[in-house]
Amino acid sequence: MDGPNKQVFYSARPEGHVAAECFSVSETSIADPADGDVVIANKYLSLDPYMRMAMLGQQGIENLNTVMGGRVVGTIAKSRHPNFNEGDTVFAMGRWEQYSCLPGTQVRHIDIGNVGWTPFLSHLGFTGLTAWAGLEHYSNLQAGETIFVSAASGAVGSVVGQIAKIKGLRAVGCAGSDAKVDYLLNELGFDAAFNYKTVDNIADEIGKHCPDGVDIDFENVGGKIFDAVFRNMNLKGRLLICGGISQYNLETPDYAVPNLLDFITKQLTMRGFTVRNHADEIETYVELARDWVAKGQLKGRETIVQGIANAPDAFIGLFHGDNFGKLIIQVDR
Amino acid sequence: MDGPNKQVFYSARPEGHVAAECFSVSETSIADPADGDVVIANKYLSLDPYMRMAMLGQQGIENLNTVMGGRVVGTIAKSRHPNFNEGDTVFAMGRWEQYSCLPGTQVRHIDIGNVGWTPFLSHLGFTGLTAWAGLEHYSNLQAGETIFVSAASGAVGSVVGQIAKIKGLRAVGCAGSDAKVDYLLNELGFDAAFNYKTVDNIADEIGKHCPDGVDIDFENVGGKIFDAVFRNMNLKGRLLICGGISQYNLETPDYAVPNLLDFITKQLTMRGFTVRNHADEIETYVELARDWVAKGQLKGRETIVQGIANAPDAFIGLFHGDNFGKLIIQVDR
Repeated sequence: MDGPNKQVFYSARPEGHVAAECFSVSETSIADPADGDVVIANKYLSLDPYMRMAMLGQQGIENLNTVMGGRVVGTIAKSRHPNFNEGDTVFAMGRWEQYSCLPGTQVRHIDIGNVGWTPFLSHLGFTGLTAWAGLEHYSNLQAGETIFVSAASGAVGSVVGQIAKIKGLRAVGCAGSDAKVDYLLNELGFDAAFNYKTVDNIADEIGKHCPDGVDIDFENVGGKIFDAVFRNMNLKGRLLICGGISQYNLETPDYAVPNLLDFITKQLTMRGFTVRNHADEIETYVELARDWVAKGQLKGRETIVQGIANAPDAFIGLFHGDNFGKLIIQVDR
Repeated sequence: MDGPNKQVFYSARPEGHVAAECFSVSETSIADPADGDVVIANKYLSLDPYMRMAMLGQQGIENLNTVMGGRVVGTIAKSRHPNFNEGDTVFAMGRWEQYSCLPGTQVRHIDIGNVGWTPFLSHLGFTGLTAWAGLEHYSNLQAGETIFVSAASGAVGSVVGQIAKIKGLRAVGCAGSDAKVDYLLNELGFDAAFNYKTVDNIADEIGKHCPDGVDIDFENVGGKIFDAVFRNMNLKGRLLICGGISQYNLETPDYAVPNLLDFITKQLTMRGFTVRNHADEIETYVELARDWVAKGQLKGRETIVQGIANAPDAFIGLFHGDNFGKLIIQVDR
């Protein structure tokens, strides 16, 4: 199989907001796999906020002048690995490109069955795993407790809220538009939700919707929203730091824990985590999640953008809340 | 038994620094115990930084115009509880006064043996328990790791460092005078220590003494010292928030976690705790600690101030580092 392979390079470090200048699109030819490698014809690419941190080198992933990394689903186009045949449906940590050549050891079969492709990049993929592993390992959740989710209609937040409901918690969230709030309340079954852009005081609003306080904060946003949740935390509350999308584009974080002494008086625990430590639990999660999907307890929503060359613009829009639910690129060929 | 009972009242809320005006000394007569109560002739009173938070009502302890609360050791002067006889040596959460009348259920026998009284208010008491319980329950310590202790020559910090050494960790600390640093290095066996008042850059200094980074921060101080330790934290580091003496006298904390995204990239855990949740472990701890004392692995140092009426001044001095080790009042009679 020959032909061009369109790729998106990380070509300049962002200063402040990530901008189009940070990326460049170019074409090469499809790689010939070495022994043990496969080539995936990428069908969909996942765009996620964590990549912004990676661009700062903080997670040690992205190097300048390399093709951006990202999770993909697609079919095997060439195989020199015994476990894979042409046409197999797979998931991998690939790259922002049409064809990714990877060691077969880093590729995983997926059974798209009647579910389709894109859920394996959202609620049946690492996004869902992020939500589940965070709750499972770091939240010590108890039925009847109240969880607050920021960016609640987002890819991770929406799964957090739905799993929390499955586990018997009261789920409360905020989002940045009335349509997203409507989705939280009427599609996903959140107990309460509000538009943080149109309320006078976020802390008071959280207090109104969480009359018994907040036991668990699943933090995706940071900044003023974090501050507002923090003020509503209950005794022995847990703060799971999963993301801080409001902070990624700032040169200097404006994100501070306002009163550390509250950690003592309220006996709080705050824990930062990354899903990469839980990659080996993906099969366990997918099995659980397929069941929840079948029962109608777990839903996803996606914004799908066409064409790998549009990935930079879509990624930039992610930090302005342009997407609704999971942001995915449909790779053109 | 009759006579006067000198008492220190909490008579005005502090504004900014706690000051002499917050306290008043008066005299009443010794109480007659009701059925089930005992009267302790207090011999020593423990003064601790946490009381400053209690004065703000943050820990729900101190009410205005009541006698200040504090841990005491002494002898039973009167008993109407079957477990106690006149002359028994006891420990209790008593008050800043010469004689404390308390329910017998809140009083504990101590065997002062050849150890003496004051260790039961310091390294054989709740101060030591604070250090031990913090490490035991929240640090997940591993031999070979590096722990940083702020206020390391203080009542809690000095025990933290010594227990860390017993457990095979590398213990590094800072204190506010060269004499205290000398004590850490040459008496308590810290691996490294420095005077934070005389170094150019605290973060760099910590880095110099912790070449492999900091795995555990046992935080007693807060503010700029916390900030400096935070910058040196290792991947999967644990921050135990035990106290924040630099912050207690501030109207608005100047104490912020500088970069919350580090919680994600470094997978940090921060946990605030209070020894009151571990009160039922005191006997377990004392048994361990007696053994460590006998082996010369655990030492304490005290500043003893004479006279209950001098408790307010001594307490104020605690926030200026006037004491060396545990601050104790010898109650006059």
